[in-house]
Amino acid sequence: MSNLKNNGNGKKAVVLLSGGLDSFTAAAIAKEAGFSCYGLTINYGQRHRIELDCAKGVADYLNLAAHRVAELDMTWIGGSALTDTIEVPKHKKQNKSNNDIPSTYVPARNTIFLSLALGWAEALGAFDIFIGANAVDYSGYPDCRPDFLDSFEKMANLATKASVTGVGHFTLHAPLVDLTKDDIIRKGIDLGIDYAITHSCYDPTPDNSACGSCDSCQLRLKGFADAGLTDPVKYINNKG
Amino acid sequence: MSNLKNNGNGKKAVVLLSGGLDSFTAAAIAKEAGFSCYGLTINYGQRHRIELDCAKGVADYLNLAAHRVAELDMTWIGGSALTDTIEVPKHKKQNKSNNDIPSTYVPARNTIFLSLALGWAEALGAFDIFIGANAVDYSGYPDCRPDFLDSFEKMANLATKASVTGVGHFTLHAPLVDLTKDDIIRKGIDLGIDYAITHSCYDPTPDNSACGSCDSCQLRLKGFADAGLTDPVKYINNKG
Repeated sequence: MSNLKNNGNGKKAVVLLSGGLDSFTAAAIAKEAGFSCYGLTINYGQRHRIELDCAKGVADYLNLAAHRVAELDMTWIGGSALTDTIEVPKHKKQNKSNNDIPSTYVPARNTIFLSLALGWAEALGAFDIFIGANAVDYSGYPDCRPDFLDSFEKMANLATKASVTGVGHFTLHAPLVDLTKDDIIRKGIDLGIDYAITHSCYDPTPDNSACGSCDSCQLRLKGFADAGLTDPVKYINNKG
Repeated sequence: MSNLKNNGNGKKAVVLLSGGLDSFTAAAIAKEAGFSCYGLTINYGQRHRIELDCAKGVADYLNLAAHRVAELDMTWIGGSALTDTIEVPKHKKQNKSNNDIPSTYVPARNTIFLSLALGWAEALGAFDIFIGANAVDYSGYPDCRPDFLDSFEKMANLATKASVTGVGHFTLHAPLVDLTKDDIIRKGIDLGIDYAITHSCYDPTPDNSACGSCDSCQLRLKGFADAGLTDPVKYINNKG
């Protein structure tokens, strides 16, 4: 991984965009660093489909070089509250000290998304990939941690043409990985981005209000509160 | 990676099935070793769609526990003769000594397929994944080499719940990786499988005859010849 010491200088980069707060901030950081950004969003059968509209909104807002919504039905894999009929947990006490991985974890999701980003990057001639993974104020997913991201980067450099031709080296950028949620929000505000166009809730209402109670809403609300700010998105009971 | 010293003992394994000779043999080896096999085939927009029917035939033939054809359009990634309008090269001299990666290479294909296999394995509670990758009589794809496969296995063990809970360890089996094509064919014949139900050609005719001239056909024909056998599939000009 890199902590973005290097500058983009107009180089192409693939940026994973979920439509949420973190990936928006990561994309804004990539643009600020001078990369020509190609946004990649995966329609994987998630229950919070508003994500896709928000991702398109983020790509427009940041005026990315391109934005692609790739179709990949992951509902057949099962095993997650986000793609299955398992209920999304609410009002859960946040506790990162145990080994409890929540039911909203989607098996191998970041591995799959990063693999698709890698394929597109290779075809584009890009060697930089951005992901908004965060390992501080997060839900405890294994595929958000620095060890995983470092390992993916190593693997990527053995998986692709570059490992044979010696031309190019992939860098996986996770500029938020060590930040708290309020630091992420402050960073985004400093960059002048408007979080009103994002969506984080795992289980929004039919009119796309955030529930305020799932892991993701709780982390987001705490982040805005810790940053001394009000979350601009609509909550079911105006918690923002 | 493992060289299959361990025995399946009825454990679940996910097996990538392309419909070709190699993955059929790898699946037969997995069954022989005692694994309960879950076949996974990806419909990625490949021009040789007959693969999908052959993969279903292989799954039936081996009486796998389950077979899934996952839909993943990869044509948008581009950059390959197998998914794009680039012409499939014919009558190419086989030369593995240079760094020439053929246009039939699909960017990050094995990384993406293995990631999907990993997701399904995790949801199934399986810790074994089989792939028919081969690094001897192959087209020079970077994602068929042992270094890549070892690296993927390491990454997989950091990507998933097991890395947090400590329950289980993923093993990536590539039982053909060091074999010549004729050794692979002899192995399959020893296991009693019928290669007539497979398909290897990158550019079959409309009636699904193999072209006999693409990299894949050339490697297959040479393998059968070196094994002193006749390829049972139909070729456009009866080269088999």
